[in-house]
Amino acid sequence: MSPGALIHVGKRHSVETKLSRIVYGVERVEELSFDSVQALKAHESSGLQSWTNVDGLHDIAQIADIGSLYGIHNLILEDVLNTKHRPKVEEMDGLLFLSLKMLGINKKRTKVVSEQVSLVLGENWVVSFQEREGDVFEPLRDRLRENKGNLRKLGADYLFYRLVDTIVDHYFSVNDFISESIEKLEDRVLNGSEDKVLESIQSLKRTVLQMRKSIVPLREAVSTILKDEFNQIESETMRYFRDVYDHLIFVTESLETQREMLGGILDLYQTGVSNKMNQVMQVLTIIATIFIPLTFIAGIYGMNFQYMPELGWRYGYFVVMGVMAAIIVVMVLYFKK
Amino acid sequence: MSPGALIHVGKRHSVETKLSRIVYGVERVEELSFDSVQALKAHESSGLQSWTNVDGLHDIAQIADIGSLYGIHNLILEDVLNTKHRPKVEEMDGLLFLSLKMLGINKKRTKVVSEQVSLVLGENWVVSFQEREGDVFEPLRDRLRENKGNLRKLGADYLFYRLVDTIVDHYFSVNDFISESIEKLEDRVLNGSEDKVLESIQSLKRTVLQMRKSIVPLREAVSTILKDEFNQIESETMRYFRDVYDHLIFVTESLETQREMLGGILDLYQTGVSNKMNQVMQVLTIIATIFIPLTFIAGIYGMNFQYMPELGWRYGYFVVMGVMAAIIVVMVLYFKK
Amino acid sequence: MSPGALIHVGKRHSVETKLSRIVYGVERVEELSFDSVQALKAHESSGLQSWTNVDGLHDIAQIADIGSLYGIHNLILEDVLNTKHRPKVEEMDGLLFLSLKMLGINKKRTKVVSEQVSLVLGENWVVSFQEREGDVFEPLRDRLRENKGNLRKLGADYLFYRLVDTIVDHYFSVNDFISESIEKLEDRVLNGSEDKVLESIQSLKRTVLQMRKSIVPLREAVSTILKDEFNQIESETMRYFRDVYDHLIFVTESLETQREMLGGILDLYQTGVSNKMNQVMQVLTIIATIFIPLTFIAGIYGMNFQYMPELGWRYGYFVVMGVMAAIIVVMVLYFKK
Amino acid sequence: MSPGALIHVGKRHSVETKLSRIVYGVERVEELSFDSVQALKAHESSGLQSWTNVDGLHDIAQIADIGSLYGIHNLILEDVLNTKHRPKVEEMDGLLFLSLKMLGINKKRTKVVSEQVSLVLGENWVVSFQEREGDVFEPLRDRLRENKGNLRKLGADYLFYRLVDTIVDHYFSVNDFISESIEKLEDRVLNGSEDKVLESIQSLKRTVLQMRKSIVPLREAVSTILKDEFNQIESETMRYFRDVYDHLIFVTESLETQREMLGGILDLYQTGVSNKMNQVMQVLTIIATIFIPLTFIAGIYGMNFQYMPELGWRYGYFVVMGVMAAIIVVMVLYFKK
Amino acid sequence: MSPGALIHVGKRHSVETKLSRIVYGVERVEELSFDSVQALKAHESSGLQSWTNVDGLHDIAQIADIGSLYGIHNLILEDVLNTKHRPKVEEMDGLLFLSLKMLGINKKRTKVVSEQVSLVLGENWVVSFQEREGDVFEPLRDRLRENKGNLRKLGADYLFYRLVDTIVDHYFSVNDFISESIEKLEDRVLNGSEDKVLESIQSLKRTVLQMRKSIVPLREAVSTILKDEFNQIESETMRYFRDVYDHLIFVTESLETQREMLGGILDLYQTGVSNKMNQVMQVLTIIATIFIPLTFIAGIYGMNFQYMPELGWRYGYFVVMGVMAAIIVVMVLYFKK
Repeated sequence: MSPGALIHVGKRHSVETKLSRIVYGVERVEELSFDSVQALKAHESSGLQSWTNVDGLHDIAQIADIGSLYGIHNLILEDVLNTKHRPKVEEMDGLLFLSLKMLGINKKRTKVVSEQVSLVLGENWVVSFQEREGDVFEPLRDRLRENKGNLRKLGADYLFYRLVDTIVDHYFSVNDFISESIEKLEDRVLNGSEDKVLESIQSLKRTVLQMRKSIVPLREAVSTILKDEFNQIESETMRYFRDVYDHLIFVTESLETQREMLGGILDLYQTGVSNKMNQVMQVLTIIATIFIPLTFIAGIYGMNFQYMPELGWRYGYFVVMGVMAAIIVVMVLYFKK
Repeated sequence: MSPGALIHVGKRHSVETKLSRIVYGVERVEELSFDSVQALKAHESSGLQSWTNVDGLHDIAQIADIGSLYGIHNLILEDVLNTKHRPKVEEMDGLLFLSLKMLGINKKRTKVVSEQVSLVLGENWVVSFQEREGDVFEPLRDRLRENKGNLRKLGADYLFYRLVDTIVDHYFSVNDFISESIEKLEDRVLNGSEDKVLESIQSLKRTVLQMRKSIVPLREAVSTILKDEFNQIESETMRYFRDVYDHLIFVTESLETQREMLGGILDLYQTGVSNKMNQVMQVLTIIATIFIPLTFIAGIYGMNFQYMPELGWRYGYFVVMGVMAAIIVVMVLYFKK
Repeated sequence: MSPGALIHVGKRHSVETKLSRIVYGVERVEELSFDSVQALKAHESSGLQSWTNVDGLHDIAQIADIGSLYGIHNLILEDVLNTKHRPKVEEMDGLLFLSLKMLGINKKRTKVVSEQVSLVLGENWVVSFQEREGDVFEPLRDRLRENKGNLRKLGADYLFYRLVDTIVDHYFSVNDFISESIEKLEDRVLNGSEDKVLESIQSLKRTVLQMRKSIVPLREAVSTILKDEFNQIESETMRYFRDVYDHLIFVTESLETQREMLGGILDLYQTGVSNKMNQVMQVLTIIATIFIPLTFIAGIYGMNFQYMPELGWRYGYFVVMGVMAAIIVVMVLYFKK
Repeated sequence: MSPGALIHVGKRHSVETKLSRIVYGVERVEELSFDSVQALKAHESSGLQSWTNVDGLHDIAQIADIGSLYGIHNLILEDVLNTKHRPKVEEMDGLLFLSLKMLGINKKRTKVVSEQVSLVLGENWVVSFQEREGDVFEPLRDRLRENKGNLRKLGADYLFYRLVDTIVDHYFSVNDFISESIEKLEDRVLNGSEDKVLESIQSLKRTVLQMRKSIVPLREAVSTILKDEFNQIESETMRYFRDVYDHLIFVTESLETQREMLGGILDLYQTGVSNKMNQVMQVLTIIATIFIPLTFIAGIYGMNFQYMPELGWRYGYFVVMGVMAAIIVVMVLYFKK
Repeated sequence: MSPGALIHVGKRHSVETKLSRIVYGVERVEELSFDSVQALKAHESSGLQSWTNVDGLHDIAQIADIGSLYGIHNLILEDVLNTKHRPKVEEMDGLLFLSLKMLGINKKRTKVVSEQVSLVLGENWVVSFQEREGDVFEPLRDRLRENKGNLRKLGADYLFYRLVDTIVDHYFSVNDFISESIEKLEDRVLNGSEDKVLESIQSLKRTVLQMRKSIVPLREAVSTILKDEFNQIESETMRYFRDVYDHLIFVTESLETQREMLGGILDLYQTGVSNKMNQVMQVLTIIATIFIPLTFIAGIYGMNFQYMPELGWRYGYFVVMGVMAAIIVVMVLYFKK
């Protein structure tokens, strides 16, 4: 395919692309949903700011239409559609593009799920692309509706920041989920459980690696935003991005610590297995070392030689039994030591 | 939540927020404690320098009041209240903000405890926020009261430095505590103890990781102070911060060494376990290898065949016993070698 | 040998060197193949752009002729012929030279195969050198023939980019192939298979190392192209190279993850082996610990002493059998616990 | 304590502080020793260069007096007295301060001993502080006395360099000592010795870590000298410092190699332990596998059933013995294979 | 010793220092050998270029004479004589000095041997110092004699480059030798050989570390040549040095891969040992688990109680034999599974 050719890479999630828009200003807020890009085009939001959200990426024609509506370059639409790509920031034709991963925990709380979110920031609008319906932005929408905080007072760049910030804040809860899983696993290992320990370690390791792959490139991207000072973002909002950057460093450091803890748990488990083997072997050794020689002695007096003087002795049996008892006592004392 | 929204993240320690202030100059020193932020506001400290200390962060309204009293930005108060965050330095609205971790050892001397301290430096004042009562600053207060050293002669930036320095100096004792714990553990492992060795290694590893997480960001923060030369800090005080930086490098290098030593102890322990197993197996092998063949020989002459010529021999029994003794001697000599 | 002396380093693949050329412009496209460099020289492609492809590097005289035809420095021809060298970019005498590895999977889908491709970009021509016939460029040739996309509209630098991009895109499929192999291997290990696990781990590790050796230097080379802004490449094409760079970073990060996963599989396997040994030892220990003492008791009453009171007892046999049964029950209960 | 407050940190070595001075010029050299700092003050060394050496750091008053005599800042005296600190270079009030570790091997040649040396370079003087009597500078003193080389011809900065160089040259012999110890240990491990191998590995590892902690900061300090070009040091002497830097890089690289070799020895040892266990188990298995079935056969014909036809056979015994011999032969052949 | 004092560090190789010189120009070439430095001095090579080679470094007086003849600084002669030092480049008094290691394989092809070569480049001459007779430069001498390539046409800097290049080209063959050794070792390990595997791994590891120690500093030195653009080297020759640099990077990357492969082989070997132990234990367990209970049963009926009803039964023996056979069958089926 030619570069900039639009193909959807990833799982096909929703049946229909959903288009919705929130138009807002200090005085007003309006929520709209659209059937088609044509309807979107027809809509006028004179002088206000707008946040247009697209759920579902499989309908390439629509994505291309949205792209031409907002003047988004095909190379960027290609990145929007490729949901397997790493987070990145790019400025093209006066627009700021940031793709990042929205991480969450599935409903059974057994694993981390990931969805790509792509944000494009224009002069007074933000367009967000998501793979499927459902996101972590509901509290933001509430704040817009109820005019809480500065959201309606400040520009589209502030909304852009808040979208990024909301996703990054969710990384903390995912991070805590991993920490809890690691602690539970460690407790299980210290209590001697062997049930699926290796599978759990391997799966947690995979999760940590996956998170790192989502977060480290985002950290680089935010660092680029901080350094390059794109003129789409005002200096006041920049200050908030520094906060996001701090959070991302915190999360990556936690991931590093979690990886080390997982390595430690594997060591714990392996040494635990060795220790158990050791104990098993000690039991075997003690029993065998005591009774094998005794059995041999018994075997001697079980021989059928016609001439074996001891057999005729009056107390031969008792003497042998006494010797055996003495051997047992000596052995037990030796092993105790 | 909106950024800069104030929420207390962390354990709720004290029942009441405690406000105290030391007002000092070359000639005078005065210690005061306040019931409320209103009382604090009312107090005048004309021309003198002041150090205001806040113990307890759960009462958000009070923290917000203190913030507005001193003109501290909400983004900074947010960091003051989030006690789980990593140490950082930030300049905002002409104030210098530094958050760091006060580390100590609990009373039973079994683990390292951590408390977040946030410092804000203004023109002639310092405000410090602590999670709970009790700190390592008592010697500093004594020096202020008794006018020892330069503390009362120099500006608020010097007090700011001394607060940081006092906390960093305490890192050394925590570091020594870890070193001692590691040495004790190593001795225990070399003496063959198996009691809770793995738990101790894992727990010390966790402590070292935790300390690194507290100290490395602080090192970066101090390095920022050294490079950016914030104008809140005079060049004379800067010279002292270089000292603090040296101490922080020393502590992080020690932590690195301690991590390597812990890895070495795990190796020691694992190899010790293998060695013990080896010895156990040798005992078993020697006993079994000697007595199993002998028992077989005894078994042969315990068979009840009617025609077994050896059984009728006059010295059959003694010959067999002699052969067995010879086998034992040969075997023992073989294993000795 | 003197530097710039031409020697072919690598396997000798084809019997004959194959020369082909595609001459193209917005209006026209023509495909030609040549018997000799002389025929190539004779051909005129006035005003159009050309892509000349050379399959087979063993005929050094021909390569030298091509070099002198296009004015390619001997040091570069030396790199073209040395198929064992790492990817590199170099500008010499106004030409841009890039060598890279075309990776693919062999037909049995068991291993990764590599072929060196060298590209030289002149003002309105590209020359590509390949080790043997067969490449991944067929879709590109189709696009040239059918005038799809921008290929015929843009300059030779864009063709140069597309050649690189096509090769890099193939890295993704190789990468996926490795990921699948790793997952299959992990499943096999978790299912307890021992068949050739170590060989597979070692061979996958080798493949990952080989890919890294092919890709990391190419990443550096592309980064050099991005930084140095060679004037052979127009700024519009540069934008596309940034995309290639992103892809290369993505692939190298995946390789890093794959290496960690392989390390994890080795741990899984080793611990699995230890676990199995443990189970085997437990069976042995239980059986031996139960029956060795019992055999000893039976041995006692198999002794032939003339005076052994128990032997004459009416229920002696049954008492002994009862004692033995009791021992078995106690032991089994003990081991259950 | 206030910063710059003088406290001696470290072992108290000597009973008395020893003060000595060598005054030298091209024409003259004079060696003096002093009872007190007062005597030192009284002494005039008009126009000549001087090297004043202080052995013993416990008498803080004297150190403070020397400091005020030479105009050395308290922050530097604090570093002089803190013998646990890492090597560092600092310029203060026109003086150049360098603290470093003098490493040596103890008399029994069993471990590496360390002593802190602090050097202060003034316009035409050097002051050196040592923890205790005895150093590696005797050859230097001889060269001063006998006017060998350039020592008396060049300035105090050259003496300063020679002091550093002499200490660094000694690192090589300590490094060789470690290399020898590692080689001896490796030989012992390859010869199967198990005596205190783990303790030796751990102790050598500790020594290597300790040396690294002494040398890496010194390397940084010398690199600072090379970059900052302190004006206390003339450019001619600078050239020699580049040599010192090379030596320090050589030693740190050797330490890195030694660490890897130690890791390799631990692998050797652990695998050796596994191998021995394997051999022990093979002996046990061969003996047990051969004789346990044979003992069972003998046990069968030791049963006392009244009706056992084989027992009455004329050659029953010999047949059984033959069968047993055959089993032994088959088994031995099997295990040979 | 004073810095720049000349001492020979290293093995004393040859009995006599050998001095030889090749004087060359476009038109002429002349080979000479000299008895003494005096003879060398006397020789005139007006207007031509010369390459003087010194074999053997033990005669310090001669080396010092050569130094004063060519104006080589004592600090550089010190590095020439210290054959244990790491490769380095230095410019002093208008001369360019480069020391590097000539690596080769010994005649039995069992290990890598190293010899230090020091090169000094003057305006129209090169002096090379070698530890002993015998080098890899013979092809170069042939090219000079027969006027092949550019050697006689270009300046002394080109000869200097060719000497470096020839040595670096030899690194490839040493590298291939190590690769082959590693592959042979891996095959041996996969075929289950245990003979000296650990010694071979350790020794190959040591060789790789040694090569890295020789090559990495040379890479740095060549990088310095590329960056600093010493005016002894013309820009045309510089282009060739970039080639040398590429080769050095290739070799160091190969060494890195080889180290990883060696680590993998150790893993293979250790897991192989565990696997073998596992198999041995399984044999033991199967035999013991089958026959120990059977022997116990035989033991029961070998007891001599007067009242044991089974002994009198007509088919008692056959019943017991049947039970035993049934146990064997059940056990074997169980273990098969």
